Amino acid sequence: MTAPFATLDDFQAVLAAQSGPDVRAQEAAEARNMQLTKPPAALGRLEDIAVWMAGWQGTDKPHVETPQVIIFAGNHGVTAQGVSAFPAEVTEQMVLNFQHGGAAINQLSTVVGAKLDVHALELDRPTADFTTAPAMTEAEVIAALSTGWNAVDPSADLLAVGEMGIGNTTPAAAIGAALFGGVAADWVGRGTGVDDAGMQLKAQVVTQGLTRHATDNPLQVLRCLGGRELAAMAGAIASARHHRIPVVMDGFICTAAASCLHKAQSGALDHVIAGHLSAEGAHGRMLEALGKQPLVSLDLRLGEGSGAALAMNIVKAAVACHSGMATFAEAGVSDA
Amino acid sequence: MTAPFATLDDFQAVLAAQSGPDVRAQEAAEARNMQLTKPPAALGRLEDIAVWMAGWQGTDKPHVETPQVIIFAGNHGVTAQGVSAFPAEVTEQMVLNFQHGGAAINQLSTVVGAKLDVHALELDRPTADFTTAPAMTEAEVIAALSTGWNAVDPSADLLAVGEMGIGNTTPAAAIGAALFGGVAADWVGRGTGVDDAGMQLKAQVVTQGLTRHATDNPLQVLRCLGGRELAAMAGAIASARHHRIPVVMDGFICTAAASCLHKAQSGALDHVIAGHLSAEGAHGRMLEALGKQPLVSLDLRLGEGSGAALAMNIVKAAVACHSGMATFAEAGVSDA
Repeated sequence: MTAPFATLDDFQAVLAAQSGPDVRAQEAAEARNMQLTKPPAALGRLEDIAVWMAGWQGTDKPHVETPQVIIFAGNHGVTAQGVSAFPAEVTEQMVLNFQHGGAAINQLSTVVGAKLDVHALELDRPTADFTTAPAMTEAEVIAALSTGWNAVDPSADLLAVGEMGIGNTTPAAAIGAALFGGVAADWVGRGTGVDDAGMQLKAQVVTQGLTRHATDNPLQVLRCLGGRELAAMAGAIASARHHRIPVVMDGFICTAAASCLHKAQSGALDHVIAGHLSAEGAHGRMLEALGKQPLVSLDLRLGEGSGAALAMNIVKAAVACHSGMATFAEAGVSDA
Repeated sequence: MTAPFATLDDFQAVLAAQSGPDVRAQEAAEARNMQLTKPPAALGRLEDIAVWMAGWQGTDKPHVETPQVIIFAGNHGVTAQGVSAFPAEVTEQMVLNFQHGGAAINQLSTVVGAKLDVHALELDRPTADFTTAPAMTEAEVIAALSTGWNAVDPSADLLAVGEMGIGNTTPAAAIGAALFGGVAADWVGRGTGVDDAGMQLKAQVVTQGLTRHATDNPLQVLRCLGGRELAAMAGAIASARHHRIPVVMDGFICTAAASCLHKAQSGALDHVIAGHLSAEGAHGRMLEALGKQPLVSLDLRLGEGSGAALAMNIVKAAVACHSGMATFAEAGVSDA
């Protein structure tokens, strides 16, 4: 498969041409939901999730049988500013850990029955330090978007995207501030564990980036302040829309990448659900800006798609109930 | 197996003799947790869950391989007061639905890989209407506690208990008020869907029950205001403690049953985690009184163990990470 874009303008056009959910399938699922052997609305958000899944999968009996988790890994020039508690070589070490099955996301993918794919994006060539130059050239951001686009398995019926990239809460914070306003301090957090002085440094670095790369174009924000794994996640989310695959979003970094799509094209995240609320300070603020309510809130702040893969269990449970339950008529149960 | 009690005094003595978690296993699990390839605490509550599981299972690598879900069903004389939106015969119809695989809990048990057992408790003999008499005699409550005790599979490594019983939010509300104080209106909710007038009626009925059965003894509260399925859940939770099986609590009714154990013996719920926050109004208040923080909050209000079975996926994910992940040394990843 070749990604259908060669420039950011092309990618913007792809976003603008996206279609909505299958309304008939959604209505059929709503009708089915009212027949199931339970009091109306007694399964709460699980019912909403099932109907939403129906709309994107185009069937009144949605399924989660072939879920896919994709992790994109990238390195960041901005780590030269000392913004992370871990050294940059950990990105590659963790990619090996993913490949050998030793990371949290390996176990979480197994639990939910998902295929796990890992894409390392030019780890030996970090993005530029955004305090001194755009993080990526247009060719570089297009390459990353394309990797993301092509990484999606068209036969997947649910997708989670995640990331690994030492230092990448800093670009994510910069994206949050650039897209949604406020000051840098509103958007920086502890990442993998920096102290108060580290937080202040991150805020300074973000402010420098915002000053250098002032732009109203959300895809330019992604290029100038983002990173390869962020662009790849954005590409994968757009690709999933093309293939009518619902997406479970991970934490702060993933949400920052998705936010660029949301700001570039209204409705671009209609096929995306928020998997969890991360303990990374500004994630809640970012989800609110997107109008997304997380499925779980368990103080995770790991990345790797871990929160999304965990939340996939909820989506799987929701469609299992919806598609597997008997109706009142089938079960011979009195409907009040 | 024979339950080791023949009177409520015996049962109280069983609760008093319960032992605590395996502290050495818990400490070993904490030490292991610090070695895993993630920043400290990056898996949030999943880490706490894994360590808690380790303590009860007595191993630094806890597991969820043989989970069990048990539903207890009972009928309630108090339905004669018109407190439910559904007719009492639905209890038995739903038991058949459980047995035929058509209910939500069947699908949810399948998703998490749990064995599902259903125990119908003398459905043709409802408890007495607690506005006019104690719901159960001592022999009846002991029989129900014993059914619950004996229903637990000693080879299970995680247990969820749930219930089906038309009208049973009313006894649960009465238990809440009797154990934790406040007025009836603080504890009644919409159940399967009563309107405002129905809520007022429930509050009146609960007030009548509280007036008639004033007692400080939590097990007498269970007998006089509860129901067979509530007593069975309490028996199963106590039995799980005996077998060192951690328990995931379901919603309002299950929590009311568990609360009788908590009030009867401090620490009796140390092996119990709150699966979810129900949409039934007073569930949050009851969890707070127990000091339990729910794993998910998705507006479920179905009962049947549905919220607990859903939350079992979180517990399964937590122990999968803890017991399956590589350590920094094993993976060759730099520890910051």
